[in-house]
Amino acid sequence: MQEDPRKLFGRRLASLRKERGWSQERLALESGIARSYLGGIERGQRNVALLNICKIADTLEVDPAELFRF
Amino acid sequence: MQEDPRKLFGRRLASLRKERGWSQERLALESGIARSYLGGIERGQRNVALLNICKIADTLEVDPAELFRF
Repeated sequence: MQEDPRKLFGRRLASLRKERGWSQERLALESGIARSYLGGIERGQRNVALLNICKIADTLEVDPAELFRF
Repeated sequence: MQEDPRKLFGRRLASLRKERGWSQERLALESGIARSYLGGIERGQRNVALLNICKIADTLEVDPAELFRF
């Protein structure tokens, strides 16, 4: 994988969130994950772990695999 | 997601590794991830993070999304 997976994942998360018409605040509220942490994930600055990946996927009602389609 | 994602991920990783005919030692050697840590991931005891998820996927030559097909 050439590009930094954190950047790829962050971009994919942002696009799935926007597809749903949600702000970062809304995703934070719905998922229980801090807005600032979500912002860092979307900017490609966080090495997010499995439990949060699945929590985010569940919240967006997508399969976790969808977050890795990049 | 009902079941613990760490257990689901661990089982999926073990099956992909075995499909490839690799031992945990071989995957550890090829990926640069400690065998003991890989064992913990496969037993569902580790909250593995994005960079290691992608390193494992690259090593097994599968798309990271494959590791989430559970």
